[in-house]
Amino acid sequence: MKKQHVSEAVIRRLPRYYRYLDDLHSKGVVRISSNSLGSRMGITASQIRQDLSCFGEFGQQGYGYNVKELRSEIGRILGVDNRHSIVVVGVGNLGHALMQNFHFADIGFSLDAAFDVSPSLIGTTINGVKVLDLSELDEYCSQHLPDVAILTVPQSAAQATMDRLVELGVRGFWNFTNKEVSSEKEDVQVESVHFADSLLTLSYRISKR
Amino acid sequence: MKKQHVSEAVIRRLPRYYRYLDDLHSKGVVRISSNSLGSRMGITASQIRQDLSCFGEFGQQGYGYNVKELRSEIGRILGVDNRHSIVVVGVGNLGHALMQNFHFADIGFSLDAAFDVSPSLIGTTINGVKVLDLSELDEYCSQHLPDVAILTVPQSAAQATMDRLVELGVRGFWNFTNKEVSSEKEDVQVESVHFADSLLTLSYRISKR
Repeated sequence: MKKQHVSEAVIRRLPRYYRYLDDLHSKGVVRISSNSLGSRMGITASQIRQDLSCFGEFGQQGYGYNVKELRSEIGRILGVDNRHSIVVVGVGNLGHALMQNFHFADIGFSLDAAFDVSPSLIGTTINGVKVLDLSELDEYCSQHLPDVAILTVPQSAAQATMDRLVELGVRGFWNFTNKEVSSEKEDVQVESVHFADSLLTLSYRISKR
Repeated sequence: MKKQHVSEAVIRRLPRYYRYLDDLHSKGVVRISSNSLGSRMGITASQIRQDLSCFGEFGQQGYGYNVKELRSEIGRILGVDNRHSIVVVGVGNLGHALMQNFHFADIGFSLDAAFDVSPSLIGTTINGVKVLDLSELDEYCSQHLPDVAILTVPQSAAQATMDRLVELGVRGFWNFTNKEVSSEKEDVQVESVHFADSLLTLSYRISKR
């Protein structure tokens, strides 16, 4: 794979390529042209070719892309073969919903544990995953350092929880607290899910102008 | 406001501008240069100027942007002054989490009702919002047609639920089912929240290359 700077916009489009290719693959589509893939995704064929050129040579003039191969390649680039470990921190409604419904394994994540402070939750099992006492976090991380922690704690606890996890060695954060969290450590990566951004996009589209 | 085609990428950035400006405003910042706003947001100053030029004239050479004014303007463009009405369809963990934690009013939405089929939920009130029997949907919509329906039903019911709502006149859908839903009606707008896209972006960043 070529090593070069890949823009944020391209990184954001990669999971969409993966999703569309995965869907095509599951429908039995064997190959697809960049034109046809582009029109499904609402982007241009030349955008697709340009995006993929960041990572190497894909597709063949006059043939298009082999769906299964391109899906695997993009999956590999995204790290779905790395079997990243992940834990839920905060088993409120949202943490619970993710544990119950999100298919972590489909995109290469292994959901290994969840943590909460509520006595009524500690010791229970949700979708095969045990809920542990938050006080066990240090011990847990010293034994099985997770690649990613899902922050589904209350907003007021967001930054402190992240700081504690960074201290314990966690470097990836999937942040659902709707609060900006950050770390001074350069190798810490935060991905925030901003529900409001999504709803505002819809608001824009339905607003009468 | 100028009427022109605004690209999907610009529309996606508008809520981020709004979020950053809202944060600056709440911190008491009065004005900001496009350079400084850009560096916070990780985009270039010229990108900001170009994006905003789609909607009119903002900012002043040598002064920058008035934070409060630009926030209001972008809010207006996004439709936060329109007081869109919204209902939750499907009060599982995720629907419940949104009702409990998401600040609809902060971005101009009025959460007016929720619908479910579960007898244990029907008639309860969550965060001041009543959960109604899904069978009352037709009657409800004929009286208070909501602008947006939040789809938090099980995947298997996603498309059928949307079809029914479209039939009843609903035109905006905030889709959390992780399933692509669509309508043949041209004026129907769907905004899907793809959790997997977000986690895969993080997967990319933490993957060792």
